[in-house]
Amino acid sequence: MSKVQPLSAADLAEQLATVPGWTVRNGKLHRSFQFPDFVAAFGFMSQVALLAEAADHHPEWFNVYGTVEIDLVTHAADNQISQRDLALAAQIDKLLDA
Amino acid sequence: MSKVQPLSAADLAEQLATVPGWTVRNGKLHRSFQFPDFVAAFGFMSQVALLAEAADHHPEWFNVYGTVEIDLVTHAADNQISQRDLALAAQIDKLLDA
Repeated sequence: MSKVQPLSAADLAEQLATVPGWTVRNGKLHRSFQFPDFVAAFGFMSQVALLAEAADHHPEWFNVYGTVEIDLVTHAADNQISQRDLALAAQIDKLLDA
Repeated sequence: MSKVQPLSAADLAEQLATVPGWTVRNGKLHRSFQFPDFVAAFGFMSQVALLAEAADHHPEWFNVYGTVEIDLVTHAADNQISQRDLALAAQIDKLLDA
């Protein structure tokens, strides 16, 4: 995979404002989601999986029952946060508006 | 949910032998799975999700690309390992034989 530029600190700070709920944790773009039960949580994960595969950009994620924790980082940007992470975060957030 | 008995140390050691590949890590029944890509990994997770929901027994799990890490523990057994964890582990292993 070709190299991707990580976002500069200024660009990252600016773009974080466009995806409320996401923070930077351990150098990764992070958000925690709560659903009423496993069926709802895994339904959401299935939606995210389709978006991720289509974007060829995949999350690091954890689930237990109704909790889904997502971390986004770009391997092709030396495991730093890139535009690709912000784009996927925005797509994920749109799922919740539906 | 009604209480579930955790397995005794002797029963756990004996039953672990029936699910090769699973170990006890941080007090949980643990196995790591490797798939060639995200499509294969998430396909496996979808199968596990259906089994878990049918059993009303849900994993703690992590995925990144082709890696799936599963931890099983029983909340109703004071977060210890019970027969329910061994049963789900055996069901998960059967998926890989198919």
